[in-house]
Amino acid sequence: MKKIIIVIGGLAAGPSAAAQAAKFNPHAEVILFEQSETVSYGICEVPYLIGGDIQDENLLEIYSPGRLAEEKGITVKILHRVEKIIAAKKKLVVRDLNSGEIKEYQYDKLIIATGASPKKLHIENEDSRNVFNVRTRNDARNILQYIKTEKPSRAVIIGGGMVGVEMAEALSKRNIGVQIVHNTDLPLDNFENETREQVLEKLKQNKIDFFANTKTEAFIKSNKEKVGYVITSKASLETDMVIISIGVIPNVQLAKTTRLRLGTTGAIAVNNLQETNIDGIYAAGDCCEVANIVTGKPAFIPLASLAARSGKTAGINAAGGRFKFEGSVNAAGLKIFGIEVAKVGINSKEAQKLGYKVISETINSSSKVTFMPGSKKITIILIAEQKSGRILGANVFGEDGALLRANILGIAIQQKMTIDELSKSDLIYFPDISPLYDPILIAANKIKRKYRNY
Amino acid sequence: MKKIIIVIGGLAAGPSAAAQAAKFNPHAEVILFEQSETVSYGICEVPYLIGGDIQDENLLEIYSPGRLAEEKGITVKILHRVEKIIAAKKKLVVRDLNSGEIKEYQYDKLIIATGASPKKLHIENEDSRNVFNVRTRNDARNILQYIKTEKPSRAVIIGGGMVGVEMAEALSKRNIGVQIVHNTDLPLDNFENETREQVLEKLKQNKIDFFANTKTEAFIKSNKEKVGYVITSKASLETDMVIISIGVIPNVQLAKTTRLRLGTTGAIAVNNLQETNIDGIYAAGDCCEVANIVTGKPAFIPLASLAARSGKTAGINAAGGRFKFEGSVNAAGLKIFGIEVAKVGINSKEAQKLGYKVISETINSSSKVTFMPGSKKITIILIAEQKSGRILGANVFGEDGALLRANILGIAIQQKMTIDELSKSDLIYFPDISPLYDPILIAANKIKRKYRNY
Repeated sequence: MKKIIIVIGGLAAGPSAAAQAAKFNPHAEVILFEQSETVSYGICEVPYLIGGDIQDENLLEIYSPGRLAEEKGITVKILHRVEKIIAAKKKLVVRDLNSGEIKEYQYDKLIIATGASPKKLHIENEDSRNVFNVRTRNDARNILQYIKTEKPSRAVIIGGGMVGVEMAEALSKRNIGVQIVHNTDLPLDNFENETREQVLEKLKQNKIDFFANTKTEAFIKSNKEKVGYVITSKASLETDMVIISIGVIPNVQLAKTTRLRLGTTGAIAVNNLQETNIDGIYAAGDCCEVANIVTGKPAFIPLASLAARSGKTAGINAAGGRFKFEGSVNAAGLKIFGIEVAKVGINSKEAQKLGYKVISETINSSSKVTFMPGSKKITIILIAEQKSGRILGANVFGEDGALLRANILGIAIQQKMTIDELSKSDLIYFPDISPLYDPILIAANKIKRKYRNY
Repeated sequence: MKKIIIVIGGLAAGPSAAAQAAKFNPHAEVILFEQSETVSYGICEVPYLIGGDIQDENLLEIYSPGRLAEEKGITVKILHRVEKIIAAKKKLVVRDLNSGEIKEYQYDKLIIATGASPKKLHIENEDSRNVFNVRTRNDARNILQYIKTEKPSRAVIIGGGMVGVEMAEALSKRNIGVQIVHNTDLPLDNFENETREQVLEKLKQNKIDFFANTKTEAFIKSNKEKVGYVITSKASLETDMVIISIGVIPNVQLAKTTRLRLGTTGAIAVNNLQETNIDGIYAAGDCCEVANIVTGKPAFIPLASLAARSGKTAGINAAGGRFKFEGSVNAAGLKIFGIEVAKVGINSKEAQKLGYKVISETINSSSKVTFMPGSKKITIILIAEQKSGRILGANVFGEDGALLRANILGIAIQQKMTIDELSKSDLIYFPDISPLYDPILIAANKIKRKYRNY
């Protein structure tokens, strides 16, 4: 009899898991359940859609359900919600949301890829028609539709994380005046303060108001449908629309009722094969934890890049392979009003919390040979452990070549390189792309000189 | 008494060595001898000067002799030629080229950084006024002057290596019709064939004639001063100027008379402290060998990036430090008519010669998410050892983000990473800079699937 592999969830980790399972074991029957109408959606591209850089919303549908099924050889069931996992019997209870019908499905292996949902403020009127999240295709379409038909001139964005600042730029490209309400002193909490100050500066230069250390207290309606005022601890903000981007929480409802073990982060605990504590059940993507390579500890890092990789791992293993996911260096980046901002590893606050004695250094250099046309300032903040010299983390920002340089540092962190080793790296010198000493070498040399004599 | 450290040669390795020596031991007296009038010149930037991207030639003088002396605390003697090294007595015989006077200098430590010189064709009329190399400040000034005053409309470039193709673009920006004469079938001999074909294609698209497998046989003068025809094995080419860029040979004249040991490459043999076989004498830069990290063998790799680093190493060690230069992954790159072309490690021909059983794979991907504005095709060729999976080399080319990605692969090679490890790297996904699977991961995954099942 055919082996049956079922995947729950169709955004990022799910399709990856299903496709890899079918590829690894072409004789298996792979079924993917997704409760919405959409699978495999490019949610990270939404700010570019809203901002107008991408004109056709359909481009963000990387695979339609039909194409996913056909090209990857899997069964895709959209508008199907898994209501219950009966682990003892390897059975699922699934509701067809079209017909309302309930049906049971048998599985040999199960992959849970239920993703994460936007955190809520839990205040009144949060579900008004002009209050949006940025998490699903419907969110994207609703925002776009609202902008096009109702031509808002003001928006309040609650939460100045990566999604918040990206959406701020996107909306401002539509000539919408943006006010960001943020609960700490600077945007992008997971970055170093110098990086965050730079981003704040960019926001201000582009006429985005940033309310620091500000709490959102109430949404006041201007009419029956829409929020017209956001009342905060600092000011009352008049607005035509609200975006809430205060982070996500893992979707672990099904996991909880199935008694899957959750980690301290609240996400599903998995090993490096993406196995949960119950035999035959795997988890992947934003609903589960991922090993932080720097700390060696499980972490909650909801990034599409990791969802794809943990999904692949779960898929291969559920299909009978043995493939390890070594974890993440928490590599993330964005471009905001022309500057690339990227981070890898842990930040200095985290490092201190974890008890590392940390050394760090900031350098300003140029992306190319200084006098070449198009040469831009680039800043690197390098964080290392004092005792061993091991690189723990880095921020890189600038208008040219910052993010790809962060990837170089990401590999260095993953390889547990020390600042000594990094300073001796052989990097290409070409005037129009990298100076004689690449900024990475300048950073490594500076921190080395300061703490290691030369 | 003050320790005396003498450096011979002022282009790249020399100033680096002298500056680092003075910094490491501020009590030492550091003297740098340079036979020309110029030290610390940005010779790699010359094509951008000739092409007109850099307007002011003076910008290429990174340090004037005066500034180098003042800012680095060293004595700089330009127009001084070291005629002889009397190693037994730790003495130099030096001619002041201004006065013609000969003087002896005592040293405690000596650093030889005599660089390399252009290879010659050894044919008649090679020293005509309109036949140029691209190696010194005088070369740069002479070419520039010639173009500005004599407005040549045709040029023949002999040698289609990195300097040759860069100069081809530079001259074509000045509306000079360029013909490249090359002795193999494709330009850029050290790159993979697919890369070389791509570069040839770019040259052709930009109306550069490329004569493959062609030998230069004679220079025929059109008048007393100038070469007017280049006679080759394929055709007789009428021209207004000639650039010879067929490689360089290490300047080892002084080393030979001093009985310094040369390696099999013909350059000075050094250990990883940049020590030669004679006590107290170091060598750095293009006159000496460098360890190839991939093969573990000494190589001749005349690159400014390595000159700076071996110079630094020699300077620190001559001043009493103990600093190791781990060698090179032969990382080099250029931009030619808009495409970045880069290589790291060894190429497949070298690998085969060295007896590696090689696997290789080429992927075409996009520099950003495909449907983002500005997304460009990018190609990666990955070369690995079949048995171990260790990455031996790579080529990367494309209009966007190719060179910095090659640096990522360079670090991977330096760290002796396998394709398995590389395929599990955590790289940043951001639509406007890198796709969900960065081209590097796509390349690693493809080669892995082909040779390792998944």
